[in-house]
Amino acid sequence: MKVVTTIAELKQFVQQTKKEQKTIGLVPTMGYLHDGHLTLARTAKADNDVVIMSIFVNPTQFGPNEDFESYPRDLPRDTELAQSAGVDVIFAPSVEEMYPADGGIKLLVGRQATILCGASRPGHFDGVVQVVAKLFHLAEPMRAYFGQKDAQQVAIIETLVRDFNFPLEIKTIAIVREEDGLAKSSRNVYLSEQERAEAPAIFAALNIAKAHFLQTQNAQEAIALADKHITTNTAGRIDYLQLLSYPDLAAITAQTNKFLLAVAVYIGKTRLIDNLIFQIEGE
Amino acid sequence: MKVVTTIAELKQFVQQTKKEQKTIGLVPTMGYLHDGHLTLARTAKADNDVVIMSIFVNPTQFGPNEDFESYPRDLPRDTELAQSAGVDVIFAPSVEEMYPADGGIKLLVGRQATILCGASRPGHFDGVVQVVAKLFHLAEPMRAYFGQKDAQQVAIIETLVRDFNFPLEIKTIAIVREEDGLAKSSRNVYLSEQERAEAPAIFAALNIAKAHFLQTQNAQEAIALADKHITTNTAGRIDYLQLLSYPDLAAITAQTNKFLLAVAVYIGKTRLIDNLIFQIEGE
Repeated sequence: MKVVTTIAELKQFVQQTKKEQKTIGLVPTMGYLHDGHLTLARTAKADNDVVIMSIFVNPTQFGPNEDFESYPRDLPRDTELAQSAGVDVIFAPSVEEMYPADGGIKLLVGRQATILCGASRPGHFDGVVQVVAKLFHLAEPMRAYFGQKDAQQVAIIETLVRDFNFPLEIKTIAIVREEDGLAKSSRNVYLSEQERAEAPAIFAALNIAKAHFLQTQNAQEAIALADKHITTNTAGRIDYLQLLSYPDLAAITAQTNKFLLAVAVYIGKTRLIDNLIFQIEGE
Repeated sequence: MKVVTTIAELKQFVQQTKKEQKTIGLVPTMGYLHDGHLTLARTAKADNDVVIMSIFVNPTQFGPNEDFESYPRDLPRDTELAQSAGVDVIFAPSVEEMYPADGGIKLLVGRQATILCGASRPGHFDGVVQVVAKLFHLAEPMRAYFGQKDAQQVAIIETLVRDFNFPLEIKTIAIVREEDGLAKSSRNVYLSEQERAEAPAIFAALNIAKAHFLQTQNAQEAIALADKHITTNTAGRIDYLQLLSYPDLAAITAQTNKFLLAVAVYIGKTRLIDNLIFQIEGE
């Protein structure tokens, strides 16, 4: 496995790979790799001849009061883990390498960025699509891999690819869950024993809402049932719980055929997110 | 030569061409081809194995009071001309084919769009970079060709390619001039005999300013000389006359090494533009 830090080195590798008619899978990360990242890398390796993983803590997606400086970084450890998952090249550029100049042209996400997790992070998703567009152009992948856990991020990136015709496919990896259904998260360790026992109610609530909606097409009732299940079975406070069209993240209509059911809940001080993406089955 | 109107057909051609390891040159146009477009196509053909010309009157770069509906269109004539210039594929999509959905993600040009020709056309260059980014992703060219006559457009597209790392090269074709130096334009026919006789003073003024600036590094004096040459030798009214850094289109500093000297002049009712792009020679 190679670790490259300059755009010139990465482009040389990409050009050589293309010349050999090999396919490239890209796994964009901010490093400090966990199981989720490694699943993305292993899936990319199964689908493509070559896997490029970017490790770049992107300053433009952090707000002024967010933790850009203190975001955890450990390239030696990441390198070892990435290699074990079959990554061929790590691209770990400096901020100066990625943003040497600023001519003032920006990608701005619209309505999709104003809701769900975006409501409390203005500018965050603009930074995400900026760095993702750059990485897509630099690595020229046939497929790029993202975790469905960050469903809003994936929806926005799928919209970017669709509306700007990027010549690649977005692959989404399903949420990895504990045996009782709780979505895996590095934050789960913050939960007390009682909170941890209650937390699976979040996933259960999503399933209740999905089943009710598929049966009745009544979104309002479905959401109310999920809301009741969470508030009855946990001491948590719901941040958001919404059923939207996917990937546009707009209000659903009779024409909507793909859905995102997304939830964020504060269990004590710990904010947990989860979601389901589903379609109405053909008749 | 093929004429394709769907993205699916274009992508199929592009994928086959890439498989054969042939290089692609892209010439984006709004059709109603003139000599300038054909020079772009012939240059693209000399540099690349295959030339794709897009013919698409892009609605998103027209303002609400501009001439999108009445913009001239003549695909049969364009097809003949493009073939004669060596174009391999014309991509002539409908508006619905290019913009089937709108998830609300936009490319916004910053300061570069607020000056020169952009000052009177808010949103114009946002529409230009939107369609250009889409065409770059659809045609996947190694090189894309633009005329230097629209220097601000080229500067913005070069900035787009640089700041978003598009994997291609922008090639600029020099302004084609009449024997007396006047930049060729379909608008020149609107000039009266007297106006036509005066119009070469515009190009002469740019050369005077450039020579003075290269000798003295005094931009203000250089601009004043050009201004005086135009107002003395024509009955024209200067819309703008500016010396800026290229491609950032910012105020020049001691560090600036590439320059755009751009002018727009109303000669009677006819608005003529011209420009020079130049560097300070190494010592």
